[in-house]
Amino acid sequence: MNKGIANFDYYNPTHIVFGKDRIGELATLIPTDKKVLVLYGGGSVERFGTLAKVREALTGHTFGEFGGIEANPTYATLLRAIELVKKDGYNYLLAVGGGSVIDGTKFVAAGALFDSEPINIFGSGIGEGIPIKEALPFGTVLTLPATGSEMNSGGVVSIVEKKAKLGFGSAVTFPQFSILDPELTYTLPKRQLANGVIDSFVHIMEQYMTYPVGGMVQDRFAEGLLETLIEIGPDVVDESNHDYNLRANFMWAATYALNGTLNKGVPGDWSSHGLGHEITALYHIDHARTLAIVLPSLLEIRKEQKGAKLLQYAERVWHITDGTDDEKIQAAIDKTRAFFELLGAPTHFKDYELGDEVVDALVSQLEKHGLTAVSERGDQTLDVSREIYKNAL
Amino acid sequence: MNKGIANFDYYNPTHIVFGKDRIGELATLIPTDKKVLVLYGGGSVERFGTLAKVREALTGHTFGEFGGIEANPTYATLLRAIELVKKDGYNYLLAVGGGSVIDGTKFVAAGALFDSEPINIFGSGIGEGIPIKEALPFGTVLTLPATGSEMNSGGVVSIVEKKAKLGFGSAVTFPQFSILDPELTYTLPKRQLANGVIDSFVHIMEQYMTYPVGGMVQDRFAEGLLETLIEIGPDVVDESNHDYNLRANFMWAATYALNGTLNKGVPGDWSSHGLGHEITALYHIDHARTLAIVLPSLLEIRKEQKGAKLLQYAERVWHITDGTDDEKIQAAIDKTRAFFELLGAPTHFKDYELGDEVVDALVSQLEKHGLTAVSERGDQTLDVSREIYKNAL
Repeated sequence: MNKGIANFDYYNPTHIVFGKDRIGELATLIPTDKKVLVLYGGGSVERFGTLAKVREALTGHTFGEFGGIEANPTYATLLRAIELVKKDGYNYLLAVGGGSVIDGTKFVAAGALFDSEPINIFGSGIGEGIPIKEALPFGTVLTLPATGSEMNSGGVVSIVEKKAKLGFGSAVTFPQFSILDPELTYTLPKRQLANGVIDSFVHIMEQYMTYPVGGMVQDRFAEGLLETLIEIGPDVVDESNHDYNLRANFMWAATYALNGTLNKGVPGDWSSHGLGHEITALYHIDHARTLAIVLPSLLEIRKEQKGAKLLQYAERVWHITDGTDDEKIQAAIDKTRAFFELLGAPTHFKDYELGDEVVDALVSQLEKHGLTAVSERGDQTLDVSREIYKNAL
Repeated sequence: MNKGIANFDYYNPTHIVFGKDRIGELATLIPTDKKVLVLYGGGSVERFGTLAKVREALTGHTFGEFGGIEANPTYATLLRAIELVKKDGYNYLLAVGGGSVIDGTKFVAAGALFDSEPINIFGSGIGEGIPIKEALPFGTVLTLPATGSEMNSGGVVSIVEKKAKLGFGSAVTFPQFSILDPELTYTLPKRQLANGVIDSFVHIMEQYMTYPVGGMVQDRFAEGLLETLIEIGPDVVDESNHDYNLRANFMWAATYALNGTLNKGVPGDWSSHGLGHEITALYHIDHARTLAIVLPSLLEIRKEQKGAKLLQYAERVWHITDGTDDEKIQAAIDKTRAFFELLGAPTHFKDYELGDEVVDALVSQLEKHGLTAVSERGDQTLDVSREIYKNAL
């Protein structure tokens, strides 16, 4: 399986505008001849004054607003935004929020210029999977570090009636710019901070914890980001700790966790997200918390297949030096689980008052969505996924 | 001096085309309606067949060639290229070579559209330092990993009659694409491979070895790249070792060493390059080899100012655990020197049959070029630089 480093393309044109008090620069980041639609989620961006700053920066522009994009943005809501964009002739979008708002805005940007019904952006038996060829230009103001969506070209949308979360992406759906102001995270509650740390951590693991191919730079970067999150995670989730560097390091690490740096030329195993999405769809548990349930269990069940990299993870990330290889690996998995628990995210279904009824239900959803042979080897069958869910009860 | 992470902008639109047998993609990477000038250096790209592959890929394009760009490209040569571009109406440039050819091509791209005499792109008392506002589009085919020029917007040009090497750069002088084929390094001699490793290593150190500001991602990435170069360096300089992963890791690490990732929001100390450039200008020693002379000596002289980061470097990069802090720091500096020597680069002037006459001569050049208060603190005066040169005799 060790095929070495594969050919790859790296391209990421997003302009990152990082630091304190940068929202005012929206005035020049968006051309003044654009008609801007500002998209956001619930009331927090209004309540904490972020929207007010955005409105002030855009006083020289013509702009409108579209609120109410959900955590796990829904196709139905985004379709309404697409209709508004078309009807009122908006030609620039600005997402103000976290990954859900940014993912949703990406979908609106592509959907507004899509030749077919927007549902056909998706494949997976839901739509026709027609490639995105163009999209409206858009920028983002990030308020919640977690998904990396502010510096990548992908997104995930929920189709409620199908109980499905589906991904999309293209070379034309990178944000033109993203404003990353660490001070905007000062108003986040502990739960969202923890979710951000865990989501970022698992993104890194999914690009790292595969069979080894010898991508040394990719490995070192992944390990460095994991070490950073481990080091700062416990302080980050202290919502009263407004140390600027702490939040800046969190924000930048979360962005790098999924901005197309770590996956270059190396395999990825996105099965934690795959298995986690089904948990969110059926039981409405926060996305990141589903990952905290799945990942430690998955690492235990897949110890053999991922042994070489697990050992490297134990030694380089957790600095475990004592014991046999097997002991080091188990210690690293235990530490991973303990890290999630320390951040406040339980790692078993029972912590959510869910019992063994979940296993069949979740496996059946995996089957329906075609996730029957996942992982970087394609050898994680439904039976293996069943073991992973069971091991997390 | 610890001011924390500064505000920063990150923007890097270069499309990296990494891997085996990718030169053929030039046919589609460059629009067919462009008139292309291919720029290269000496005979090696011709001799080893790289130019033949480029010509074949460009059969659908109108193109011309300009050879003879020197290692340390000269203003006089680049001026001839600029005149050719203007006379024959080339509107796309393609650099085929290492950092010198790419730097030179960047200068030609900017110079061809510059309103004033191209010399005025430079400041430093040589020209008027007029900002670059536009440049011809250009791509690169990298043959020598070392300078990072394939994925950044800066360059260095020599002005022979002034014995000066001067930098330039702008937001419009990023390559549109760069083809990085690790197999193109298989024809490089040991000396150039060693120069590439050392140049990359010192680029990283210059963005890392400053007073600490707590940029955890930046530090971890720098440390990971340094560890990678330390691990592979001795094998890379074995010119007969054509292991693909080895060369791929070298190429990618060298690009990341100076592609605008490591310096975001943190201070930099480019004084090794500053002091080294004067050595090249006066004594024609390879650029990287001048860095191998300067850096270990500089770290010794500047131990006090750089103590906190030197200790971090000792512990994290060289994994030195024994001894007092001072002993760890000295051990790390000794290992750095030994690493350069192992790669075949001497670290003292005497190894080049140069004696203490160099000190006054070099310090006088520093003074002439205004390098009188360098380093991240601006506290490396001419007297300190004199000590650094003396310590390297």
